[in-house]
Amino acid sequence: MVKPVVDRLAIVGAGLIGSSIARAAREYAAAREIAILDASPEVMTRVRELGLADDASGDAAKALEGAGLIIICTPVGVCGAVAQAIAPYLEPGAIVSDVGSVKGAVVAQVAPHVPAGVHFIPAHPIAGTEFSGPDAGFAALFQNRWSILTPLDGADKDAVARLVDFWTRIGAKVECMSPEHHDKVLALTSHLPHLIAYNIVGTAEDFGEQTRSEVIKFSASGFRDFTRIAASDPIMWRDIFLNNREAVLEMLGRFNEDLSALQRMIRRGDGQGLFDFFTRTRAIRRSIVEQGQDTSAPDFGRGKPS
Amino acid sequence: MVKPVVDRLAIVGAGLIGSSIARAAREYAAAREIAILDASPEVMTRVRELGLADDASGDAAKALEGAGLIIICTPVGVCGAVAQAIAPYLEPGAIVSDVGSVKGAVVAQVAPHVPAGVHFIPAHPIAGTEFSGPDAGFAALFQNRWSILTPLDGADKDAVARLVDFWTRIGAKVECMSPEHHDKVLALTSHLPHLIAYNIVGTAEDFGEQTRSEVIKFSASGFRDFTRIAASDPIMWRDIFLNNREAVLEMLGRFNEDLSALQRMIRRGDGQGLFDFFTRTRAIRRSIVEQGQDTSAPDFGRGKPS
Repeated sequence: MVKPVVDRLAIVGAGLIGSSIARAAREYAAAREIAILDASPEVMTRVRELGLADDASGDAAKALEGAGLIIICTPVGVCGAVAQAIAPYLEPGAIVSDVGSVKGAVVAQVAPHVPAGVHFIPAHPIAGTEFSGPDAGFAALFQNRWSILTPLDGADKDAVARLVDFWTRIGAKVECMSPEHHDKVLALTSHLPHLIAYNIVGTAEDFGEQTRSEVIKFSASGFRDFTRIAASDPIMWRDIFLNNREAVLEMLGRFNEDLSALQRMIRRGDGQGLFDFFTRTRAIRRSIVEQGQDTSAPDFGRGKPS
Repeated sequence: MVKPVVDRLAIVGAGLIGSSIARAAREYAAAREIAILDASPEVMTRVRELGLADDASGDAAKALEGAGLIIICTPVGVCGAVAQAIAPYLEPGAIVSDVGSVKGAVVAQVAPHVPAGVHFIPAHPIAGTEFSGPDAGFAALFQNRWSILTPLDGADKDAVARLVDFWTRIGAKVECMSPEHHDKVLALTSHLPHLIAYNIVGTAEDFGEQTRSEVIKFSASGFRDFTRIAASDPIMWRDIFLNNREAVLEMLGRFNEDLSALQRMIRRGDGQGLFDFFTRTRAIRRSIVEQGQDTSAPDFGRGKPS
């Protein structure tokens, strides 16, 4: 049998990501035993019903006793409060990590609460779906996805290696970078696309009832792709925008500049400019498919709607 | 055996849509025989190799002889020229239709060339993938998708009914509306989303090599969905924006207003405003899935990338 990467894993927050880590840690033997904590009694009940944890008592002191790896899987906005709450129970040598989509703000909020002798190593798995909650998770979520670690200066090398091992064991590929760099790259690849998707769905929502129902009916022409992204968890995304404000506003500024240029081409009837623009964007898609980051099946291989 | 809706079907332009109509017409017995014309010798060769047509001679006079339904499946920008070129061969009682994503401009460009006694009924099937060309088509493309017809004032009722039958036979659901209304709805559900997707991929493309490669690597966080849309055919989309300029610019204006409001919320740290906005957009997604216009599978049921 494979040796677990950690003996006892504690997960705080049993949503899509937390419950997927629990399932994956069990499925791929990344932890010998798993404790789960969640602030919501309903979620804790569901965790017990689904049998996701060895310890689902909801008692922080018990859950964290002997935990070698604690992963905070809550929305970014409450990471600091969670760190403060669990700090008394963290044992020397343990690793505290998280899964937040923003890293600079998480470091600022969590680091002050981490006791000496405990290793804080922020992380962000680039994985998810538009669904939320403990029922939405699944063990294979991280297979072939990237998990970005942003260890702080002077981070303990052995602890980082252990966290790399953990993510690798549950199927992820790992890359390390600084929190600042992470927040800039993700502002572009994730935060801005979500903002734009939310915005365009909101624009449609503002129309009267008749247009709204036509938008739904004829959504297959492009719009429906945006609605999937705009169906993501509102609390999670509120916190991301509040906590990565500067990088998001910078990317939004660039986006707006570019959009003005396209708008001008349309107004002026600049067919060559539009054609050139639409041609060079094709190459990026090709690279993404070639690198195994998306399916090459037409229309995402969507099942025929019934 | 089912009686074909038309005896001879002629398709002009054998791209994704034209070749899909040919395949579907054969598969579902919508036409007894099929002729295909395409301005590109390479495409005509491929049409013959794929065996898509009964008549793939490439001779317009021959192809259109006895054709009861002629569907123009070229980019919108050349519809007028195509109509002018085929006009001499159109027989009284025949139906001329198209599949263009813009209807007002197509009516303006095609109608003047349609001889008296020939019925011109514009159409737009809301179906497609990000791929192009005769190899990309497939018979099931229109199953459970909408096809919008925009018959002109005083259109022949029997001819309209025949075209409705044709689309129904190959699997589509049909709705009729005015060209102006079509262009407004599609500007919102299709043209604006494509413009936004092209734009955001363009924004990423403008970064230096390192950031660009990271964008590709970490695209699974939202960005990759946009790249699929932005991989669509550049000529088709150039023509759409040039030919639906006013409706697109109007929708873009609304989009920009809404985006400014979101930008202000982020800058001011208005968490409640962001949360409320992100919550109401969830409902539209639910309606789209309920109406069978998209899969409910998480992440579009994407296959695990290999």
